[in-house]
Amino acid sequence: MKYAPKEEIDARIAKLKTLMEKASLDGAFFHYKIDYYYLSGTMQDSLLFVPLDAEPTLFVKREISRARRESPLGNIVPYRSVKDIPQHVKPMKRLGMQLDVMPYNDVIKFQGLFGNVEFVDSSPLTKELRKRKSPFEIALMEKAAEIGRKVYARVPEFLREGVTEIEVGGQMEAYAKSLGHEGLLRVRSLNYEAYTWHILSGRTGSIVSQSDSPMGGLGLSPAFPVGASLKKIRKNEPILVDFGICYHGYQVDQTRMYAIGSMPDIFVGAYDACREIHDRVLDKVVEGYTSRELFEYSRELGDKLGYGEYYLGYKPHKVRFLGHGIGIELAELPYIAASHTYSIEDGAVFAIEPKMVFPKKGCCGYENTIHYRNGECRIITDTDDSIVIV
Amino acid sequence: MKYAPKEEIDARIAKLKTLMEKASLDGAFFHYKIDYYYLSGTMQDSLLFVPLDAEPTLFVKREISRARRESPLGNIVPYRSVKDIPQHVKPMKRLGMQLDVMPYNDVIKFQGLFGNVEFVDSSPLTKELRKRKSPFEIALMEKAAEIGRKVYARVPEFLREGVTEIEVGGQMEAYAKSLGHEGLLRVRSLNYEAYTWHILSGRTGSIVSQSDSPMGGLGLSPAFPVGASLKKIRKNEPILVDFGICYHGYQVDQTRMYAIGSMPDIFVGAYDACREIHDRVLDKVVEGYTSRELFEYSRELGDKLGYGEYYLGYKPHKVRFLGHGIGIELAELPYIAASHTYSIEDGAVFAIEPKMVFPKKGCCGYENTIHYRNGECRIITDTDDSIVIV
Repeated sequence: MKYAPKEEIDARIAKLKTLMEKASLDGAFFHYKIDYYYLSGTMQDSLLFVPLDAEPTLFVKREISRARRESPLGNIVPYRSVKDIPQHVKPMKRLGMQLDVMPYNDVIKFQGLFGNVEFVDSSPLTKELRKRKSPFEIALMEKAAEIGRKVYARVPEFLREGVTEIEVGGQMEAYAKSLGHEGLLRVRSLNYEAYTWHILSGRTGSIVSQSDSPMGGLGLSPAFPVGASLKKIRKNEPILVDFGICYHGYQVDQTRMYAIGSMPDIFVGAYDACREIHDRVLDKVVEGYTSRELFEYSRELGDKLGYGEYYLGYKPHKVRFLGHGIGIELAELPYIAASHTYSIEDGAVFAIEPKMVFPKKGCCGYENTIHYRNGECRIITDTDDSIVIV
Repeated sequence: MKYAPKEEIDARIAKLKTLMEKASLDGAFFHYKIDYYYLSGTMQDSLLFVPLDAEPTLFVKREISRARRESPLGNIVPYRSVKDIPQHVKPMKRLGMQLDVMPYNDVIKFQGLFGNVEFVDSSPLTKELRKRKSPFEIALMEKAAEIGRKVYARVPEFLREGVTEIEVGGQMEAYAKSLGHEGLLRVRSLNYEAYTWHILSGRTGSIVSQSDSPMGGLGLSPAFPVGASLKKIRKNEPILVDFGICYHGYQVDQTRMYAIGSMPDIFVGAYDACREIHDRVLDKVVEGYTSRELFEYSRELGDKLGYGEYYLGYKPHKVRFLGHGIGIELAELPYIAASHTYSIEDGAVFAIEPKMVFPKKGCCGYENTIHYRNGECRIITDTDDSIVIV
C-alpha cells in the first residue's frame, strides 16, 4: 500500500489555507471522507479540522492506529461523538463545512454544538484545490491506467457470441480487482451511483436512462437501470466498453469499441469521427479555448463530419458535456461543457468522451483520461485505440 | 425484469398516508432514489410528491418513458428543474422531506422555492413503512438468496493456496452478476460505502477498520481500507466469506466459513458457538424479546460458551449490534442492538451475524438473512452451514 507522503499532505493543506484566507474562513471542518482523504491521507472514520492559523487536527472514531499509519498529519486524536469536538476548537467566527454533500440533519446538529459561528459552504475550495494534480497523484492514475491496459487487453478473451453484457463486465471487474482495482467509483452526489461495468451492445447502446450520459444502457432491473444488462452479445453489432478503474482512490476512465465478426459500417465511420473530435478538441485545449468553446467546437465538428444528429445522444436526450475532470471523484473540475466558461488549467486531468448514439441501433464512443501539463495533452489511458474485432 | 405491481405500490402509498396523517403532514417529497423507488417502482431520475389528500405525482427528469413503464403510478410528468415543482403543488402547511440524507444545500434551495411552509424530516415514516416486507418483496429476496446459494456453492472452486482474498471476491462477484446480482449494495449514509467482497483470511480477519463491524479487514489501499485485500490465502487458516447479493434492489446478507487443508480448532469451536448463538437468539425472537434483550442475551451466551473476550470483536473494538434489518438498504429497521428497545415485528426481515475475532489470529462468523413471520424465524439464505474444507 502506498501512503501519501508528508510533503504531499503539507502542500495540500498549505494551498487550502491560502484559499481559506481568501474566503475569510477561520477554519474548516471536513466530514466527507473523500475530502478528508485528500487532505489527510486516510479514510478511517474521521473528522478533519483545519484552522487557518494552526496545524490541522484529525479526530478519529475508528480505527486510530490505522489512521496514524496512513496519515502523516501530526495531530491525530480519538473522539467518540461530534459533541466532543467544540471543546477542542478555540472560538472562531466563520467556519467552512461541506454543505454540498453533508445531510441536512447532520449539519443542523453539528452547527448547534457551536455558539455564534457562521458556517459557510467550503466545497468550492476543495474543488478548486483538486483541479490540478500533483506528480504523486499522477503516478497513482498511471498505475490505474496500467491496470486498465491489462484489463482491456483481455476483453477479446471475454467476448464471445451469446455471452451477456454483464458477464463481460463481471470478468473485467474480477481481473481488474486482482490487480488492485478497488471496485467502487465515487461521485459527489446523493442519487448518482457510479459503477464500472458500462458494457453496451447493439440496441441496448441506444437506450437512455437516469444518468446524464448520451446512453444509459438497459441495466439489470428497475433498481439498477443503467450499464451492462443480461442481453446476450451477438455477432456484427457494436460493443461499447466504458470501464473505469480505481487505484488508491484515483480513477481513470476510458472507452473502446469491439465487435464479434465485423463492425457495421455506420459505427466504423462514427468511431473515426469520435477519434477525430477527441484529437482536435485536445488541440484546442492547448490553444486555450474555454470549456464552453471546446464543447461548441466539438459540436460543430460533429455537424461537419455529418453526425450532428447522433453526437452526444439523439434528441431530446442529448447531453451538454463532452468531458469531466477526474481524480478521487469521477466528476471533478474541470468540465468540458456548455455551461462552463473557464480554460483548462495546467495540471488538470480530465476525461474526454465523444460519443454517438443511433436510435434503436446502438452507440459508439471513444474516451481517454488526459493529463494537461506544460502545454501538452498526454493520454494517460493509452490503450490501443483501434476497433477490436474478435 | 420484474416491475412492482400496482396493488403493491398502492398498498405502500396507502400505508405511508396513514403515517403522514399521524405525523400531521399535508404531503411529502421524496428526492432520495431509494425512497422513491420503494414508493413508485422506478429509479429513473425523479422526484416523488405524495399529498395526503390526492394521488401522488412522480416528476421525472430522465428518462420518462422508462419511468412510465416501470412505475404503476398514474401521474407521471416531466420536469426540468426543482424550480418547476411548486407550481404543481397546492398551498400546504407542513411537508415532509428526507432530511436525514438530503444535502444541506439542496434542502435550503428547495425550501426556498416554497412560501410559508414548515418542512419536517419524514425519514422516520419511510423507515417505519419498510420494517415489514410484503410477499412481493420476499419473493425478490428469495431470488437474491437463490443467487447466493449458487455463488457460495462455487467458492471451493475459487479457493486455492496462494489466491488473493480479492480474487476470490472478484470471482464470486463475476458469477453473481451473470445471475442478475446488481453489484452495488446500498446504505443510507454519507460516508459508509457498502461492498460485497468481504473475504477475510487468517490474520486479516482480525484487522479492525473504519466500519462499524467486529472486523473490517485490510482492504486494498488507504482509500479502500475494508474488505478483501491482496493478501494471499494460505492453508489451515480461517476464511470468512461474507458476501451480500442484490436483486432488483433487494439484498440478502450471509456469512460462511472455509479453510484450505484444515480449520484450526479454535475456529471450529468458535464457529459452533456462533451457530448456537444464532439459533438460540432466533428462539428468543419468537418469544418476543426486545432488540436490546436479544443483544444482551447473545452476549451472555458468548460469555457462557467461553468466548466473551472475542464475541463481536475484541476490546476496545467490540461492536454493539448483532443484527440489522435488510431490504432495499443494507441496514434498515429492525436492528438487534444494545441501543434499540423494540420487539421484532411480524413481517420483519433481518440479518443476524454472531462473529468472533481473535487478535492477530483471525475471525469466524455465521450469518443469515431471516424472515420473521407468523411466529417463525425462517432462514432465507439457507446455504449449507457447515465449515467447508477445500
